[in-house]
Amino acid sequence: METIKIVKIGGNVVDNPDALASFLEDFSKITGKKILVHGGGKIASKIGRSLGIEPVMIDGRRVTDRPTLDVVTMVYGGLINKNIVATLVGHGVSALGLTGADGALIRSARRNPEPVDYGYVGDPRKVNTSLLVSLLDSGIVPIVAPLTISIQNEILNTNADTMAQTLATALAEIYDTQLIYTFELEGVLDNEQRLIEHIDRSTFETLKADGTVSGGMLPKLENALCAIDRGVRSVMIGSTVISN
Amino acid sequence: METIKIVKIGGNVVDNPDALASFLEDFSKITGKKILVHGGGKIASKIGRSLGIEPVMIDGRRVTDRPTLDVVTMVYGGLINKNIVATLVGHGVSALGLTGADGALIRSARRNPEPVDYGYVGDPRKVNTSLLVSLLDSGIVPIVAPLTISIQNEILNTNADTMAQTLATALAEIYDTQLIYTFELEGVLDNEQRLIEHIDRSTFETLKADGTVSGGMLPKLENALCAIDRGVRSVMIGSTVISN
Repeated sequence: METIKIVKIGGNVVDNPDALASFLEDFSKITGKKILVHGGGKIASKIGRSLGIEPVMIDGRRVTDRPTLDVVTMVYGGLINKNIVATLVGHGVSALGLTGADGALIRSARRNPEPVDYGYVGDPRKVNTSLLVSLLDSGIVPIVAPLTISIQNEILNTNADTMAQTLATALAEIYDTQLIYTFELEGVLDNEQRLIEHIDRSTFETLKADGTVSGGMLPKLENALCAIDRGVRSVMIGSTVISN
Repeated sequence: METIKIVKIGGNVVDNPDALASFLEDFSKITGKKILVHGGGKIASKIGRSLGIEPVMIDGRRVTDRPTLDVVTMVYGGLINKNIVATLVGHGVSALGLTGADGALIRSARRNPEPVDYGYVGDPRKVNTSLLVSLLDSGIVPIVAPLTISIQNEILNTNADTMAQTLATALAEIYDTQLIYTFELEGVLDNEQRLIEHIDRSTFETLKADGTVSGGMLPKLENALCAIDRGVRSVMIGSTVISN
């Protein structure tokens, strides 16, 4: 089975020009098929503020009204995506920028307005796998911005972590798939700030039960293990490998 | 030879939501291979102004300093491009939004700063024809924003008319190629405001010599005839057909 690496970069990389340049140089050296999924929330907040649109966050998620949707469509789909593409093209990568709306690459369901109305925010449901495989087979490296398209053909703001996971699980049937999250820390750390090198379902239950892992790391690991259950070979969070 | 239609929509369509909706419905009904190239200058000027960046135009061309480049990258590559894509996906078109930077689709030369320094503005030089053919053969309808990439891998603001012509001449070797410019008038008009239905090189010389056609229409027609000389079957400006 051919391998594919799906790499998600978060705000700590996207928002820092030096970190981004260094990451993109490393990414360009990955051999074989690969996909990059990026965020860019801080830049969207900054440009939104310049346009008089104050960001509203609930539980770390951006409330996306109509003007905010325009901002994230511009910033994620245009400014950040195309600058990443241009840098990678400069490294000899056949990078092609996409959102989930392009070719209906990722269809999503608009989130239920109850209990919290996040506005134009979607959760991924279906990947246009044949389009993605056709692009990959043409030697293209898709650079994916965190926007999707609803069944009603609305552009929806979408969590980049979830998009990366959705792409990985859709491709796991076809490729030997690795999902890689860059991370602001060395990886998943225990209570003494030491790196946990490997996590599987059973060690996860132990780490959770004894409180070694807690807070925001729990849903991240749940998601990673969910991807593993769906056929993804391994998920990396920084240097921590999650696999069977 | 398979046919392809390359359609360029200008500001009069892009800037008017009703005209755009109506155009996109018509565009979705064109059978066979097709490409859409769009502008969007008025929206870029409006959003630039909201960000405190006053547009500077010389001879109708936008002077593109670094902040203006960010604006057009956001607005052309993100906001306008992705909204067109989403609408066309809603009409069942496998629309995929691109700039000339994506996959180095269109390389350009940064314009000489003498006699006028337009900043980050490029003139198209080379089309990645194999990428384009590969996308078209996958059933994709490319939606192209007016940005290109220089040899130095800078994103450059680029005239949409010229991009459409560059794509058409590059594809004329492979397809029976028609280039279509939507136009605010019925077509090329004579001095009595009557439509000129057909123009070829020899009628053009007559129309030019006797002053029937003048001003901004002259370079448009020169460009159209240049495309014909390079193998494009016909160019439409509104309802006027330019061909051999």
